Amino acid sequence: MTGRMRINQLINSDTPLNDVTVSAWVRTRRDSKDFSFLELNDGSCLKNIQVIADESLGNYGDVAHLTTGSAVTVYGRLQASPGKGQKWELRAERIDIISRSPEDYPLQKKRHTDEFLRTIAHLRPRTNKYGAVFRIRSELSYAIHRFFRQRHFYYIHTPILTASDCEGAGELFRVTTLDPTDMPRLNDQPGHTDFFGKSAALTVSGQLEAEMFALALGRVYTFGPTFRAENSNTSRHAAEFWMVEPEMAFFDLEENMDLAESFLKQVIGDVLENCTDDINLFKKFVDPRLSEALDDILSHDFARISYGEAVAILEASNFDFKFPPTYGHDLQTEHERYLTENYFRKPVIVFDYPADIKPFYMRLNDDGRTVAAMDVLAPRIGEIIGGSQREERLEVLQRRMKETGLATEDYWWYLDSRRFGSVPHSGFGLGFERLLMLLTGVTNIRDVIPFPRTPGNIEF
Amino acid sequence: MTGRMRINQLINSDTPLNDVTVSAWVRTRRDSKDFSFLELNDGSCLKNIQVIADESLGNYGDVAHLTTGSAVTVYGRLQASPGKGQKWELRAERIDIISRSPEDYPLQKKRHTDEFLRTIAHLRPRTNKYGAVFRIRSELSYAIHRFFRQRHFYYIHTPILTASDCEGAGELFRVTTLDPTDMPRLNDQPGHTDFFGKSAALTVSGQLEAEMFALALGRVYTFGPTFRAENSNTSRHAAEFWMVEPEMAFFDLEENMDLAESFLKQVIGDVLENCTDDINLFKKFVDPRLSEALDDILSHDFARISYGEAVAILEASNFDFKFPPTYGHDLQTEHERYLTENYFRKPVIVFDYPADIKPFYMRLNDDGRTVAAMDVLAPRIGEIIGGSQREERLEVLQRRMKETGLATEDYWWYLDSRRFGSVPHSGFGLGFERLLMLLTGVTNIRDVIPFPRTPGNIEF
Repeated sequence: MTGRMRINQLINSDTPLNDVTVSAWVRTRRDSKDFSFLELNDGSCLKNIQVIADESLGNYGDVAHLTTGSAVTVYGRLQASPGKGQKWELRAERIDIISRSPEDYPLQKKRHTDEFLRTIAHLRPRTNKYGAVFRIRSELSYAIHRFFRQRHFYYIHTPILTASDCEGAGELFRVTTLDPTDMPRLNDQPGHTDFFGKSAALTVSGQLEAEMFALALGRVYTFGPTFRAENSNTSRHAAEFWMVEPEMAFFDLEENMDLAESFLKQVIGDVLENCTDDINLFKKFVDPRLSEALDDILSHDFARISYGEAVAILEASNFDFKFPPTYGHDLQTEHERYLTENYFRKPVIVFDYPADIKPFYMRLNDDGRTVAAMDVLAPRIGEIIGGSQREERLEVLQRRMKETGLATEDYWWYLDSRRFGSVPHSGFGLGFERLLMLLTGVTNIRDVIPFPRTPGNIEF
Repeated sequence: MTGRMRINQLINSDTPLNDVTVSAWVRTRRDSKDFSFLELNDGSCLKNIQVIADESLGNYGDVAHLTTGSAVTVYGRLQASPGKGQKWELRAERIDIISRSPEDYPLQKKRHTDEFLRTIAHLRPRTNKYGAVFRIRSELSYAIHRFFRQRHFYYIHTPILTASDCEGAGELFRVTTLDPTDMPRLNDQPGHTDFFGKSAALTVSGQLEAEMFALALGRVYTFGPTFRAENSNTSRHAAEFWMVEPEMAFFDLEENMDLAESFLKQVIGDVLENCTDDINLFKKFVDPRLSEALDDILSHDFARISYGEAVAILEASNFDFKFPPTYGHDLQTEHERYLTENYFRKPVIVFDYPADIKPFYMRLNDDGRTVAAMDVLAPRIGEIIGGSQREERLEVLQRRMKETGLATEDYWWYLDSRRFGSVPHSGFGLGFERLLMLLTGVTNIRDVIPFPRTPGNIEF
């Protein structure tokens, strides 16, 4: 379609090439007596291509003053580089200057803090680190689709706009077309004059809708944005983030755990294989323990213990926990870390949690007290996946809904799926950004999202 | 992971198989004297597997009363079928009944209208037609990712929550965490006490943000939900739909057109190849002209004409248009259809539209009156893709923004990209559901979205 080549193609070339055209941005310029080296990057990969520009160029005077961030098109030949650290260099036969970046270009060669770069989220993907983050984000997305497609899962787009609330609680963003300066007030039925004729909100999970499709197409998954209006500024929470939610008809809890384990191993393995340079940047400069952490996941069978066993291990540990472990309470981050980092030294799947601390849709076990839930805990990260076998028995489900105070009539369609052809089924949810943080060692969720949304932040 | 097989694996088996386990739902049951045929479907493909159940089964009495929609697990052997129309049948050695569907199961064998099925959107993917729609939707999504990845594009997730409005107009859904019964009224700054400290809305396009990433990673695309709060009930509009938006640094309008044409051909070709059975259903039962329509796209170079030429053709046609074509106005559906169906009899790309009828970000041509826009028109469907080369010149862009009444200070970050390393670049947008309608011949957008959202409709 075009004779233009991208820098990743040049870097990976097997042979020298004549008549190369490449368009890219100047990262740095070094001048010698009669020639200049330009390091060019076009975002296709981490590596730059080194361009040799000399006085034979008609506009060498201009080229020798090119600033960082300027854009050029170079015509020339790819030849073996005598320099260290690179196989190829591009000998320029002509350079067209497309634009010159002014001296106040914010991304000069010096290092910038992550905090500063967040204020220029529109420019930060031009840096090595953020270019790498977002190439990895893209490759991880593809790896997820490939994993599921290989297993005959169908990808479904569950609705973002919803009138129901999967978790039965949660802080929702309301969606409206009413005039904010002229809203109906003190109205028993807020929203009845609104676009949808009732209150609408942004989804917190596509699970309930995904279950409907699992009971039709067998195996499905969602991969899309979800929302939490949680007014907390932590490094692990964003108001808008992407989730992956597979749902599988006929899967019991053990098959669910098997799938979750294969999923993590395959998608992490794929990214390591296809993004080697980008991942190496994080291993070198961001997190020296990253290799080890990823290896912990790839090379071990995950431990699998019940919640009861987990609490017993924690109680017997004599470890000085800030929150002493108690049966009937959620595991704290310090507990998860003890299990994965001290006790097992690998990922751990904890299953069969007390029903009281889990949502209504999880399947009640025969003991009548626990549900067929499972959480996958990873060293350093904590919970990375949460899932369960779903309650397929109509009466049990109705009872659990009433116990949790849910209006069963709002869920008539969900209950329908237990009336007609109900089958055992399972699924899990994974926070896509959590997985990306695990893969890169980046510790702030704001730094793996193109334009992150948090309380007070909606710029760009 | 499991010995359970899916029906698509059985249907496509090369050899007979012993010890097969399959879990699925009963579509129909036919009884003979000493045996029953069960047609089972598990959603993995359009085809059913025929199960032979006879009196040797311990629970044959129950099996012979299985209702449509009931779920079973069958253990048996896959053997050549003596019957017509199928290669294999499954001889049951044991059948476990998982659940019985009651007689009021809404999906009995009779045909249902699309209107009725919309009221049970949670069950309709269990029908042949809607199972096929949503398998095709999944495959088309994958084909899109594959197309771009092959060309070294990176997939980016642009924000759903936004404070800016790409089209500079449009009907927006507002997003808020304020109490609807206690909103601040008559306030100059609605939203200043809100979650984001200012008014927030749902995105109508990820283009502006995607441009920022194209100017960093070179070639990127979005594929995600977008929103329009248009209060119109047509068969072609939904409040929530998915869009694909590629953006390419250094691409001019012609390269943009080349990409759009290759895109349509490849993704349609992929779906035809990978979803043959499902597509055939639509060719047979939904749209007898579907084959021809798809062939029009696959087997011709698209015509390419300027807007001026298009208007001249329309004016010279002597066709009795409801709205006579006039230079300076948007092409009407009847005009688009005349061009694609009567005049060229294939897809047409119309480019260089008058600046007045296009958004501010499209690149002004040297004539000072037209912009480097392009619309891809398909027979029967009309506009399927809209795109342009983007205005990369800071001063021209600022002038165009002011002319359209946009507050340039709100777009400081967008303008930054023209201050620092600006380069020619292009992109386009494609309504994913439009493409799905083109591929299937389905004429109502509500019937290609799992749970469609339109004015007054937010059930499920």
